[in-house]
Amino acid sequence: MIKAVVVGYGNIGKAAIEAAKAAGDMELLAVIRRNPEEKEIMGVKVVADVNELDEKPDVAILCVPTRSVPEQAKKYLAMGISTVDSYDIHTGIWDLKCMLDEEAKKNGAVSVISAGWDPGSDSVVRTLLQAAAPKGITYTNFGPGMSMGHTVAVKGKEGVKKALSMTIPTGTGIHRRMVYIEMEDGADYNTVAASIKNDPYFIHDETHVIAVDDVDALLDMGHGVNLVRKGVSGTTQNQLFEFNMKINNPALTGQIMVACARAATRQAAGCYTMIELPMIDLLEGEKESLIKHLV
Amino acid sequence: MIKAVVVGYGNIGKAAIEAAKAAGDMELLAVIRRNPEEKEIMGVKVVADVNELDEKPDVAILCVPTRSVPEQAKKYLAMGISTVDSYDIHTGIWDLKCMLDEEAKKNGAVSVISAGWDPGSDSVVRTLLQAAAPKGITYTNFGPGMSMGHTVAVKGKEGVKKALSMTIPTGTGIHRRMVYIEMEDGADYNTVAASIKNDPYFIHDETHVIAVDDVDALLDMGHGVNLVRKGVSGTTQNQLFEFNMKINNPALTGQIMVACARAATRQAAGCYTMIELPMIDLLEGEKESLIKHLV
Repeated sequence: MIKAVVVGYGNIGKAAIEAAKAAGDMELLAVIRRNPEEKEIMGVKVVADVNELDEKPDVAILCVPTRSVPEQAKKYLAMGISTVDSYDIHTGIWDLKCMLDEEAKKNGAVSVISAGWDPGSDSVVRTLLQAAAPKGITYTNFGPGMSMGHTVAVKGKEGVKKALSMTIPTGTGIHRRMVYIEMEDGADYNTVAASIKNDPYFIHDETHVIAVDDVDALLDMGHGVNLVRKGVSGTTQNQLFEFNMKINNPALTGQIMVACARAATRQAAGCYTMIELPMIDLLEGEKESLIKHLV
Repeated sequence: MIKAVVVGYGNIGKAAIEAAKAAGDMELLAVIRRNPEEKEIMGVKVVADVNELDEKPDVAILCVPTRSVPEQAKKYLAMGISTVDSYDIHTGIWDLKCMLDEEAKKNGAVSVISAGWDPGSDSVVRTLLQAAAPKGITYTNFGPGMSMGHTVAVKGKEGVKKALSMTIPTGTGIHRRMVYIEMEDGADYNTVAASIKNDPYFIHDETHVIAVDDVDALLDMGHGVNLVRKGVSGTTQNQLFEFNMKINNPALTGQIMVACARAATRQAAGCYTMIELPMIDLLEGEKESLIKHLV
C-alpha cells in the first residue's frame, strides 16, 4: 500500500481525498491543514503538520495554491517524502523542475510536477500527437468553463462584488471571455466594463461583460478541452487528430494527482513532468494484466 | 545521430523510410530486403543482410509481417541491435514481451514492441484515460478503413478474385463489415456471400457482401479511430473523453515506429510496449525546449 497525505482542503484537496480513498493500493494517512478545525474530515484524520503522524508518508499530494507549490514541495522533499503538485504557471515549469530535481535527488525522493489536466494529461496528448505527426500545428481549445485566473482579476476591479469569467473556445486556440458580474451599489456599468476589457487578462480577447443579479447561481465546475492537431507523418500530409473532454475540473485534477502519486513511488529519485512518466505507472494493478487489457 | 536500418519494403517499410529521412536526428544506414532488386531505393542503400554494412546500426525498424516479428526481433537483439516492431496480435503481446525482454537484456539492447497506432498510440490514450477516470468503459471504434486481416480472409474464399473488407464503426466497439468482391467467372454470388458471412472473421458482425467490377478502384489507405471513455474520477460520475483520428494508415505506423526507434536508444536494456515509455522520449529535440513547449 502506498502511504499518502493530502495537503490542503480546497476543491482540489477534496477531490484528491475522494480519489485516494477510491484507489485500492493507497492508504490515506491524513489530510494536512494549516488550522485544522476538526479532527477528521471525510473519514480521514486531520493534522496541522506531517510530523504529528506516527508513520512517514511515501508521498504528499500538494493541493495548495500554485504560488505555494515551490516552498511546500521543497519542504516535503527535504524530509524524503515524494510530492505531487498541479503547478500551472506554464512559464515557470522548467525552473520549478530544475529546482525540485536537485532537492528530490539529494533526499532520494520523487517530485511529479504540473500533474493536472492542463498542464498534465493534455501535455501527454500534445506530446503523443507531435510524435505521430512531427510537422504541423496543435491547437488547445479550452472550455466552456470557468477560468480561475480571469475570475480573480475581475473580482479585483472597483465596483465588482462578485464575478465569474467563462472561457469559451472559438477554435484555433482563440477564446472568447464571457464575464458575469454582480455590481456594488452605485457602481457604473460602463466604467466597470471598460476597466475589465482593458485589463491585461482580457485586452487581447473578445470580451463581453454582463451584469447579473446573482453570480452564485451561475457557478458550475464543469470544463472542457478540444485539442486538435493537423500534421505530417513522414511525407504524408493532412493527418488529423482530435482529443475532447467534458469534465468536472477539480475531480479530474484530484484524480490525476492521485495517479501521479502512485507513479512517484515507481520512479528513480528526481523531478518529472507527466510527459516524462511511462503512462502504465499511473495505474493500479499488475503490469501483465494492464498490458493485456490496454495495449 | 541515431543509426537506423529499415527491414522490409512494403507499405509500412516505405513509410518508415520517409519518416526516418524526415527526422533530423536519425541516419538511415540502409534498407534490408531479402532479395534486393536494386542497390538503392528512395536514396537509401539496399542490402540483403545487416552484416554487409560497415557500421553496426543502433536500431532496426522491423517492417515485416507480424508473424515474422518474433524471429526477426530475436535475430537483431542477439547482435546487440535494438528493435522496433508493430506486432499487432493483441493476444500474443505479453508473451512476445517476455521473450524479447530476456533476449534484449542478455545483449544490452532495447526492444519496443507493438509500436503502431493500435496497438500503439491508441494504447497510450487508453492508459491515460483509465488513469483520468479509473472506473468506466472505454470503446475503441475503428474505421472507416480497410481491414487487412478481413480482406485476406475473403481473398481465400473460392470464387473470389479480388477483395476489400472495410471496417465501419457503429459505436460502442461494434463494427459493420462492408465486403467488396470481384468474382471469378462462373462463381455464384449467393454461395460466395454465404461462405464469407459464415467465416469466423465475419460471423459475429453485421456483414454486407457487394459484388463489384473493379476492387482496385476502391482501395484507399485512409483509416480512422474514435476512442471514447465515460467514467468516474474519484467519486465524480460522467467524465467524458474522446480521441479521434483520420489518418493514412501506413504513414502513421511508419512514423510511430521511427519515434519509438528514437525512444529505444533512451531506455535501459529490456522490452517495452508504448505504455511503458515516457512520451517525451519519442520526440526529437532538447528536453528543456520540449517541456517548455508541450507541458
